[in-house]
Amino acid sequence: MSAPPGQDIDLKVRCSSAAFRWARKTFDARDGKPGEVDRGLNASFASILSVGGKRLGVTSDGIGTKVEVAERTGVYSTLGYDLLAMVADDLAANGIEPTNLTNILDVDKLDERVVDELMRGLSQAALESGVSVVGGEIAELGRRVGGWGGGMHFNWCATALGVLPDELERPIDGAQCAPGDAIVAIREHGLRSNGFSLARSILSQAHGERWHEARCQATGESWGAALLTPSRVCCTLVRALVGEGVVPHGIAHVTGGGIPDKLGRVLKVKRLGAYLGTPFEPPAFVQELVGLGQVPARVAWRHWNMGNAMLVVLAPGDVERSLAVAARGRGFEARVAGQVVEGDKIRIAQAGEAAVEAEVN
Amino acid sequence: MSAPPGQDIDLKVRCSSAAFRWARKTFDARDGKPGEVDRGLNASFASILSVGGKRLGVTSDGIGTKVEVAERTGVYSTLGYDLLAMVADDLAANGIEPTNLTNILDVDKLDERVVDELMRGLSQAALESGVSVVGGEIAELGRRVGGWGGGMHFNWCATALGVLPDELERPIDGAQCAPGDAIVAIREHGLRSNGFSLARSILSQAHGERWHEARCQATGESWGAALLTPSRVCCTLVRALVGEGVVPHGIAHVTGGGIPDKLGRVLKVKRLGAYLGTPFEPPAFVQELVGLGQVPARVAWRHWNMGNAMLVVLAPGDVERSLAVAARGRGFEARVAGQVVEGDKIRIAQAGEAAVEAEVN
Repeated sequence: MSAPPGQDIDLKVRCSSAAFRWARKTFDARDGKPGEVDRGLNASFASILSVGGKRLGVTSDGIGTKVEVAERTGVYSTLGYDLLAMVADDLAANGIEPTNLTNILDVDKLDERVVDELMRGLSQAALESGVSVVGGEIAELGRRVGGWGGGMHFNWCATALGVLPDELERPIDGAQCAPGDAIVAIREHGLRSNGFSLARSILSQAHGERWHEARCQATGESWGAALLTPSRVCCTLVRALVGEGVVPHGIAHVTGGGIPDKLGRVLKVKRLGAYLGTPFEPPAFVQELVGLGQVPARVAWRHWNMGNAMLVVLAPGDVERSLAVAARGRGFEARVAGQVVEGDKIRIAQAGEAAVEAEVN
Repeated sequence: MSAPPGQDIDLKVRCSSAAFRWARKTFDARDGKPGEVDRGLNASFASILSVGGKRLGVTSDGIGTKVEVAERTGVYSTLGYDLLAMVADDLAANGIEPTNLTNILDVDKLDERVVDELMRGLSQAALESGVSVVGGEIAELGRRVGGWGGGMHFNWCATALGVLPDELERPIDGAQCAPGDAIVAIREHGLRSNGFSLARSILSQAHGERWHEARCQATGESWGAALLTPSRVCCTLVRALVGEGVVPHGIAHVTGGGIPDKLGRVLKVKRLGAYLGTPFEPPAFVQELVGLGQVPARVAWRHWNMGNAMLVVLAPGDVERSLAVAARGRGFEARVAGQVVEGDKIRIAQAGEAAVEAEVN
């Protein structure tokens, strides 16, 4: 999750570092045994393990406060796409093919209809991406779980497992990136599961407590519907590219921290920069949010994906084939968004004008 | 989690069934591919997958409302044992050796000291059991997470991965159980992570809102300390048994639903029953809880583990060797608690008197 306004990003970083420091002390526990931890990997979105000669990826995440939008709109069947996207596309960012998923649903009190809708959506999303849901736990936690309105409140997280396809010698981590590489963007029509605190704070200021019922000028739909837009799950596209013999040099799954953080994580492995002159435009509702909140570009691009679900770094010779694979996929929109350059900056332009410049560090 | 008093067990079952029904529709997605789901297994505590010729186990769970006891006592360093036990011992119940763990910590707001203590405990617990912590996510969810007192509130869950040891041909699921098999119990000194709602309701009635500061008569310690007693993690003992050539016929990890549910799940595979004449005594504080709440035996044995962390079903010829392995392990107390019998009932006696009779179904 990106840090919402008013939260302390340094504190978050210190807590995550503490967690990682304690976790790292346990890595030795599996040396030379099944489940050995790969420490060589840079820029990892997932953890990579060795089991019986196979490379496994594993990652855990949740959909954060996007849940509130479902509570407000009463629409629960699309959150499964968001949950799957958060974990499956983190695996895909390392070239891992997601295979299985477990999920944990924490609720205050149970509502059978809501649980059924959530699980129906997750099942559908998983099937479309060739992932099998193999475990789940529903925990009734009473007042330990809160939310909006009078219905069932919940928090939802998942763990995804996957395997490195035989076509790849090693996980993709950015170590192959070079100046002149093309950066292909996959289009996103919503916010995925990030930047909701900023969006809510803008909307409640502009439209009051029941902001989800107000209309977005640009699209005519309700703000609730706009914010609920399900995530585009990209893992099948990455798998298809690899299956066609394309070896991406690096892949950024654009979540919290936006393109500056997530592409930066890939590029810093070789201390490179990027110029993105033709990323996808942010969806119309996101542009309206930017205007409503008078959000500076540097803030918007760090909180939201701005229309780009994933960035795939490719050898120039692989671009044409990759765009063709995307065009054959189920509704993927892909385009060349820019290229890798020397230096340590990510510069993003929109409609010919410089929008953002960020350090890779 | 077991259903606490006042909660609707039927509703919980319907919701879990719905979740499983939707999950099952996705099992085909991996047929003939890495991550193929093993449907042949009975009485599963974990899900079993095939990856590259290896059998993998995966399971997810959390520590529920035991977290409140840490919030009340300010002691956070032992919950990691509870979290590890919930998932690692579910894998062990199928004979799977836990190898890796990811965790998700949902918080309202961050407290660096608390996060550090939680992760320190998890790291220590994992190291002691040969498990490596390979992933984690900390999500700041504001008022979506609640709890007791003024500090950081949180909910904590994990996913464990493991592999089937080469010594075992197939996961342990109860299919080898036969009348006359011995049932060996591993002692537990606390509640693990189950039955806290019942315990809290008894204690708040007896000792008021600040019940955690009241003294347990039997032990002299505070009720907070008693309820916080960390879980005995049993997976290394199961692994050691298998390493010594013992193949358990079935293993019950005693969590929500207690011995009747969890041993029942193992025995129902062969439609057998059990007579447990010499289980471990419940810890003194649990006996005091039973008295304070005038809890009928059938309720106590379904909400609490009553002193038995795990029950291992063994061929009679394997008992002596197994007890010797346990005696060599780090502080495991094990004893023969009873045996498998014909019929479909689990009967439990304590101190020579019948305590509980439950149907296996």
